[in-house]
Amino acid sequence: MAAAARAALPRPHLSLFSSSHRSPHLSLTPSSAPRLRSGAATSPALQQHHQVTTRLGDVIEAQQFDRDALNEIFEVAREMEAVERGSHGAPSRVLEGYLMATLFYEPSTRTRLSFEAAMRRLGGEVLTTENAREFSSAAKGETLEDTIRTVEGYSDIIVLRHFESGAARKAADTANIPVINAGDGPGQHPTQALLDVYTIKREIGTLDGIKLGLVGDLANGRTVRSLAYLIAKYQNIKIYFVSPDVVKMKDDIKNYLNSKGVEWEESSDLLEVASKCDVIYQTRIQKERFGERIDLYEAARGKYIMDKKVLDVLPKHAVIMHPLPRLDEITVEVDSDPRAAYFRQAKNGLYIRMALLKLLLVGH
Amino acid sequence: MAAAARAALPRPHLSLFSSSHRSPHLSLTPSSAPRLRSGAATSPALQQHHQVTTRLGDVIEAQQFDRDALNEIFEVAREMEAVERGSHGAPSRVLEGYLMATLFYEPSTRTRLSFEAAMRRLGGEVLTTENAREFSSAAKGETLEDTIRTVEGYSDIIVLRHFESGAARKAADTANIPVINAGDGPGQHPTQALLDVYTIKREIGTLDGIKLGLVGDLANGRTVRSLAYLIAKYQNIKIYFVSPDVVKMKDDIKNYLNSKGVEWEESSDLLEVASKCDVIYQTRIQKERFGERIDLYEAARGKYIMDKKVLDVLPKHAVIMHPLPRLDEITVEVDSDPRAAYFRQAKNGLYIRMALLKLLLVGH
Amino acid sequence: MAAAARAALPRPHLSLFSSSHRSPHLSLTPSSAPRLRSGAATSPALQQHHQVTTRLGDVIEAQQFDRDALNEIFEVAREMEAVERGSHGAPSRVLEGYLMATLFYEPSTRTRLSFEAAMRRLGGEVLTTENAREFSSAAKGETLEDTIRTVEGYSDIIVLRHFESGAARKAADTANIPVINAGDGPGQHPTQALLDVYTIKREIGTLDGIKLGLVGDLANGRTVRSLAYLIAKYQNIKIYFVSPDVVKMKDDIKNYLNSKGVEWEESSDLLEVASKCDVIYQTRIQKERFGERIDLYEAARGKYIMDKKVLDVLPKHAVIMHPLPRLDEITVEVDSDPRAAYFRQAKNGLYIRMALLKLLLVGH
Repeated sequence: MAAAARAALPRPHLSLFSSSHRSPHLSLTPSSAPRLRSGAATSPALQQHHQVTTRLGDVIEAQQFDRDALNEIFEVAREMEAVERGSHGAPSRVLEGYLMATLFYEPSTRTRLSFEAAMRRLGGEVLTTENAREFSSAAKGETLEDTIRTVEGYSDIIVLRHFESGAARKAADTANIPVINAGDGPGQHPTQALLDVYTIKREIGTLDGIKLGLVGDLANGRTVRSLAYLIAKYQNIKIYFVSPDVVKMKDDIKNYLNSKGVEWEESSDLLEVASKCDVIYQTRIQKERFGERIDLYEAARGKYIMDKKVLDVLPKHAVIMHPLPRLDEITVEVDSDPRAAYFRQAKNGLYIRMALLKLLLVGH
Repeated sequence: MAAAARAALPRPHLSLFSSSHRSPHLSLTPSSAPRLRSGAATSPALQQHHQVTTRLGDVIEAQQFDRDALNEIFEVAREMEAVERGSHGAPSRVLEGYLMATLFYEPSTRTRLSFEAAMRRLGGEVLTTENAREFSSAAKGETLEDTIRTVEGYSDIIVLRHFESGAARKAADTANIPVINAGDGPGQHPTQALLDVYTIKREIGTLDGIKLGLVGDLANGRTVRSLAYLIAKYQNIKIYFVSPDVVKMKDDIKNYLNSKGVEWEESSDLLEVASKCDVIYQTRIQKERFGERIDLYEAARGKYIMDKKVLDVLPKHAVIMHPLPRLDEITVEVDSDPRAAYFRQAKNGLYIRMALLKLLLVGH
Repeated sequence: MAAAARAALPRPHLSLFSSSHRSPHLSLTPSSAPRLRSGAATSPALQQHHQVTTRLGDVIEAQQFDRDALNEIFEVAREMEAVERGSHGAPSRVLEGYLMATLFYEPSTRTRLSFEAAMRRLGGEVLTTENAREFSSAAKGETLEDTIRTVEGYSDIIVLRHFESGAARKAADTANIPVINAGDGPGQHPTQALLDVYTIKREIGTLDGIKLGLVGDLANGRTVRSLAYLIAKYQNIKIYFVSPDVVKMKDDIKNYLNSKGVEWEESSDLLEVASKCDVIYQTRIQKERFGERIDLYEAARGKYIMDKKVLDVLPKHAVIMHPLPRLDEITVEVDSDPRAAYFRQAKNGLYIRMALLKLLLVGH
């Protein structure tokens, strides 16, 4: 949400932007920034001051959340389970009269659906643009900024999916309404990271002290990288990286974990790792990453499969997660095991997105 | 709706599935199966027992409905006319808080629109996926079952359109929420068959004893085949098949009608058939079925046209139906004749779908 | 909305069409036609009488509105600003229970979004068809008329975007519910013209007596042509045409303005024109109009750019408008100037569409 842009809104324009957009209790700020109080949002001077350091009211990247913010989001997400259960008898009207625009420059039906379901479960309404690429078409050459300035006139919050890293930040810098990053290219997918951490907390009961095995494509998987960033905010975490050599976790994440004092270890023995983990997070090996080296893909792909043998050694209290979609890296026989958490994880995406929409639009 | 899948849902997962999903009064079961009472739905043991024999709460194929079920659906459909008329002054809230996902693996705007209108006319909400093929993309290789398990977490009922015969049944076996088949490839399109039979009843006043002329492409038309299956449940039906030789009704339907004691006859004289029928059901000759034999298509196509000459011999009380879209197999001059029922038939699709959504989600 | 078609609706069909569709106070008729009173709508005889001369209840072309009609629309549009501001605390229910179908035969996300937002801000619901071309596909060969007759059964108003000039009129002649033209090929885009004129009134305070500079592609721009038609309804208008030679305003518009006594002048000096105008309306030079003559395009494109130099001479009270999307014909430095009205103009599209939907569905 752009402060400068708002200060520049000229005369007869009636501000879209009421103080109800801002929650004084909302702590979704980077930890280094002071919390803004509701009144502050109407002061251009103060906004100018914070323009660079805060993104209050936008969800752009996993790292922006401190533990307090995460706790608040997870608390609200938990409340959302009851809200959803009450949908038929006493549907929520919390976001009645609010309009969410899903501005998707690349298709992601799964993510879009869960955002739209979240908005509806809270009584809000949705404007859908599945092929926004055409909207501000390359042919016509409209900038993302111009598109945002148009769409913000028609809605109360924008959920942006874009093919370019950094697009969400750019949109948020332009918009006078909140922006949620629903994935920007190889960049971030913060709501996925949030739902992953929420799922661990919901399944295991705690985050501090957990042992987490990350399995599969650790080099290219946006998901596991964001998860590593976010989990590093907790205490006494131990991470095991289990992946074929060609798709090993990259040094930037390892260095980041080191700097945060998070213990990590690489292993090629899935069974041994599984036997001591609280959470095994499996990912898909993405064929498209291997180009013409189909042989490498085939070798990598079959190497670490989650099957009955893994279940046999996995602790009773542990869970198996996966961002979905899956191919055969988790066999179907695993699905009926109570420790298979991946469909519950997908469902948690609904609760997390409900929580974010509520927090961004009306506060806690 | 899968019984086994539900029994397997593990611990912290809160059931999506409340008894309100089940109506004790709903008789949409195959006639051979005992009705389940509401309470039964929460008993995994009982569910296991019924898993194979019942599809309570799913609409998969025309044959699943017995006469009692059809009567109930038609009765509710009739009530829906009043509900729709009241939309502006006193809109229905019957499905308030319910969310329908239209999961369309191939486009069918007409069918999708009428389902979405039906949901809205009852106060419900809609999640739209027009290109679900991309959703669980062949490239990514997700199974239909996995997609269903994700989408059921975001919605209360799934309307599935798929390119593969049997897909609807597979989805219903997986889902813990009701599934409606909105056409699965060359397979079934049960809501079309229901609206066709409802239209006959609504226009003629009765189904027993009617004389029905099926005209056009009887070999490939999913519509006329399903209609034949469904009409066979009534008494003293007489069916005339009028079609070019290359697209004659196939033996499986003829044998089925024989086994049910339904009289049928083939004829090449449309005028003679029209003069003694209560209902003429015209269909489009589909060019794509003829491959490179354009000559056969052209010959077939022009052979049986519904025009002023047919109107002249058609009984005053009779009606002309067509599943739409039409080309020139019914001439435009017919449209203004009161016996032209095809646009009323399309409208009945709304009422039938409203009735099904109400029956599946909250019961009668 | 077709009168003849309605008269022909046969027996068991329950009219979709209640007197609430018709507002006795609504003056959206060509000025030559008498106003219809509410009761009239139920009389087939009277409808027949008016069939050709009135399009009461449809929005087809800019010229259909007289000054009284424009005043009424603008008055309601102004009220809509307050309705929108109240969305969060006290959302409007004015169109509760009404269903709008957006039938788009070519994509136009911007226009579609603003219509859908308008409907939602008034409490109404939306059925979306983004690729209606497939709906009544060329392959299947359904006529627009048949499509309209189906869709009108599922909705209360149709917003049509089509690639063929005249399609909106054809649809309105068929439909028994109101039709709004959201652009039909090279034909009309009346809601854009309305929002343009509304923006001038809203920004400048008056329409009579304004000096208006039309800049850019005046030959191909549907927008500037429609605006010229509409502005001619006001008094003492002076229009300056500023465009590269290859895309000059065509004679038909010049002759029309002459016949209406509107003063106009051609100029190649943007700065001089800007220095004496109340409104500068800039448009995009469309590359696709130049075919292979990229050289002509490049020359035309760079010729008249709205930048700091133009701002320096532009009167303080004046405004810069643009139908969007823009390329570089307005530089980004202009955006922060209070006289840059184009994003407010886009926003006015919401208010105008809210006003039209309200007027067509429930009246003032």
